[in-house]
Amino acid sequence: MSAYDELMEYQRDTEALGQVAGRLHWDMETVMPKGAGDQRSDELAAMEHVLHARKTEPRIGDWLAAIDEASLDEVGRANLRHIRRSYERTRRLPVKLAAEIARTTSRSHAVWAQARAEDDFAAFAPMLKEVVRLKREEGAALADGGDPYDALMDDYEPGATAADLEAMFGALRPRLVALREKVLGKPMPRGLEGTYDDDAQMELTRRIAATFGYDFSRGRVDKAVHPFSSGSGDDVRITTRTNPLDPFNCIFSTIHETGHASYEQGIDPAYRLTPLGQGVSMGVHESQSRIYENQLGRGRAFCGHLHGMMTESFGDLGMDPEAFYAAVNRVQNGYIRTESDEVQYNLHIFLRFDLERQLIAGTLDVDDLEEAWNARFLADFGYPVEKASDGVLQDVHWSLGLIGYFPTYSLGNVYAGCLNEALRGAVPDLDDQLARGDTSGATGWLRENLQRHGGLYEPREVVTRACGAAPSEGPLLDYLEAKFAGIYGL
Amino acid sequence: MSAYDELMEYQRDTEALGQVAGRLHWDMETVMPKGAGDQRSDELAAMEHVLHARKTEPRIGDWLAAIDEASLDEVGRANLRHIRRSYERTRRLPVKLAAEIARTTSRSHAVWAQARAEDDFAAFAPMLKEVVRLKREEGAALADGGDPYDALMDDYEPGATAADLEAMFGALRPRLVALREKVLGKPMPRGLEGTYDDDAQMELTRRIAATFGYDFSRGRVDKAVHPFSSGSGDDVRITTRTNPLDPFNCIFSTIHETGHASYEQGIDPAYRLTPLGQGVSMGVHESQSRIYENQLGRGRAFCGHLHGMMTESFGDLGMDPEAFYAAVNRVQNGYIRTESDEVQYNLHIFLRFDLERQLIAGTLDVDDLEEAWNARFLADFGYPVEKASDGVLQDVHWSLGLIGYFPTYSLGNVYAGCLNEALRGAVPDLDDQLARGDTSGATGWLRENLQRHGGLYEPREVVTRACGAAPSEGPLLDYLEAKFAGIYGL
Repeated sequence: MSAYDELMEYQRDTEALGQVAGRLHWDMETVMPKGAGDQRSDELAAMEHVLHARKTEPRIGDWLAAIDEASLDEVGRANLRHIRRSYERTRRLPVKLAAEIARTTSRSHAVWAQARAEDDFAAFAPMLKEVVRLKREEGAALADGGDPYDALMDDYEPGATAADLEAMFGALRPRLVALREKVLGKPMPRGLEGTYDDDAQMELTRRIAATFGYDFSRGRVDKAVHPFSSGSGDDVRITTRTNPLDPFNCIFSTIHETGHASYEQGIDPAYRLTPLGQGVSMGVHESQSRIYENQLGRGRAFCGHLHGMMTESFGDLGMDPEAFYAAVNRVQNGYIRTESDEVQYNLHIFLRFDLERQLIAGTLDVDDLEEAWNARFLADFGYPVEKASDGVLQDVHWSLGLIGYFPTYSLGNVYAGCLNEALRGAVPDLDDQLARGDTSGATGWLRENLQRHGGLYEPREVVTRACGAAPSEGPLLDYLEAKFAGIYGL
Repeated sequence: MSAYDELMEYQRDTEALGQVAGRLHWDMETVMPKGAGDQRSDELAAMEHVLHARKTEPRIGDWLAAIDEASLDEVGRANLRHIRRSYERTRRLPVKLAAEIARTTSRSHAVWAQARAEDDFAAFAPMLKEVVRLKREEGAALADGGDPYDALMDDYEPGATAADLEAMFGALRPRLVALREKVLGKPMPRGLEGTYDDDAQMELTRRIAATFGYDFSRGRVDKAVHPFSSGSGDDVRITTRTNPLDPFNCIFSTIHETGHASYEQGIDPAYRLTPLGQGVSMGVHESQSRIYENQLGRGRAFCGHLHGMMTESFGDLGMDPEAFYAAVNRVQNGYIRTESDEVQYNLHIFLRFDLERQLIAGTLDVDDLEEAWNARFLADFGYPVEKASDGVLQDVHWSLGLIGYFPTYSLGNVYAGCLNEALRGAVPDLDDQLARGDTSGATGWLRENLQRHGGLYEPREVVTRACGAAPSEGPLLDYLEAKFAGIYGL
């Protein structure tokens, strides 16, 4: 066997074990008995020990040194790129630091949850200080002389830099702020009224997932506290949630997760259990969930069809398709990122991006974080944060040490804007199709041009190839301005 | 850290990974999407590779050599006994042979399923020949000069020998045969008639599991093709099945699996994720499932209560409690072990035990196995096997290489007989409790005297301690003769 074949055989088990660990998380959030939590932590820790040992295994270094890269094809070189990146990253991280981060973030998550429940940032601050200290250390170790924040971000979005994103977000910001002001100056459309049966929501939401091409023979939809997608290849499961007063939450969470899941299900089966067999980055992943949810799912054309599906499930909705479309796309003030609309969502991200960079740079102290958050929120949104659970404590990410993750959400939105523009160029009658509830033109184009490649190309490259041009913020802004001008009569 | 502490820390991860692998099997049988089978095989194989590497890790030998056993308490010595046994067994087995067995039995299972569906033993025979050849080799390697069949059986029932079991089964056989003849000479009681809603069966069966002390905060009950119990400690899940024409199948499968699960849930929490944290052997496990199912669940006292529960769920059953008790305990001719009644079940086991010993001894060739099975069945049961799926192809065990497993079922029945006798001596008003649907006297005694010990004592020893005497076949035979004399008026 060649060194490359040996390496890939070794890697196959590592990938399979990664899938197993992911499925334990799915199980924990959906079907696990309540009393099994402590034991599950031990099981997850054991999987983590195995995976970490496999990723730092010295034989990987020997194989990498022995492989003649010039003899490999495009797929082989891409596999090597992923394996080398992971190997070098894990080797740069001192074992003791990695263990300390794992231990601290696992405790920190529980402290954050408690502090959030009690709206008490001071109770979380000492723990977060420790997390920030460790992540700064991690960033410095990984950066090897480069920028620590970029090094942290590289875990989620290989190749992205804070400087590039800062420029992109700087260009997004003024037009988003202007659009927000115009929209909020207009009367708010009516929302849905009444209550919507939970079981009927789940039945409908499964049909909608199927409408968007989700393959139930290789996945399933369950309820969980937080919607998520989990797994790659032939076992990609999604979760959603129901609220009798807000069926849109269930439906658009499902469409969002269907985007993530369809990406995973759409990857070339030849890449299964190789480094190419999963979505290439968080940003590209988010581009799929966002284009399914927003540009397709919340578009006028599909909303007309959805109005019909919901009427079938729940009876008369008390509004015609046009009012329904406006209700789906209501823009309103609020504190919570995950409940935010398309116009304001990215403003929430910019706030987090700027603050977490300051934390890592050491120009903002954790003790001053709540005040900094609240001042920035007031400046950006025009009304004050009243409690920490609406502000600095609302998101789980920092408690888990996920620093450098937030900007990938906005990057995903930008990518979705570019992909939407290219898709509409390639499929001129897209809206006619969507109005009939036929998403195959859209999902087929995305599968063919982006999803099937998995990890073959770098994140920016795969979007560039799909769109025929380097990604930029223009298409997202044009799309948002046109859409909301239509709904709000701007 | 002492060598013992290091070994136990290492072992903790191994135990946790074993739980994870078990949960993958549960997932596969209950919630896994249909199309995920191939990927799941790869995931299971990766877990198997990790577990095998951990069990043969040379550091275990170093730790074992370094530990001063005299310095350990009873628990420490028991842990060491389990770890040493596993380490020595896996090291005796050549790596190449272990891999060949894994590969062959994984292919063989599919061939068996196909052959069974087509009632074609000849299609399975070449595969089975290979399995038998490998298991003979394995037995010889493990036995290290001793008896190969005993060495294979040691995987399921440490300390048991074929010679001991042969003597025990020899003593059971004549009285079981005589009882069977008397019972089948009498008119058969009426069975249940009508159909029973699947959802109502599941609702009822969950209540019955709770009645038998199953802790739903550390487990769950789902449907699967085959009933089973899975997991240890704080996550012990059971499955059952429903048949609208036969609610007893669902109910008594559930009670049986509740016995297995309660054993796991009842082990001292201090033993969690150590070698003592799971049932000590297949035979002792089966003693728990059998005493819950038969001596408790199918007894006259509990059947009176069950008659009431079923009437509540399904309306009038068309028979009084006494007729219902007889219907639950009907003895009738049949081919299938898993559907057999208490009187005939062990005869099915003796047949398999004798044939598989001949296969391993080399005195019976796989080519002659179907004929040998059919001749023995005719001699024991008095009517001929008409098709292979009713005979030699009915059980999955041999296709998976599980040779030496069958006798533990009868051993479990014998242990259940002994435990039932001791339990009734200790709890004189047991039947009054069971008639009220209160199983706490029974399950409490079993937990205190047997279940909580987990792997602390050897299988035979833990039963001896619970019963105050060495196990023998007498109590099971006395119980069966008295019970069926009552029902059939012998």
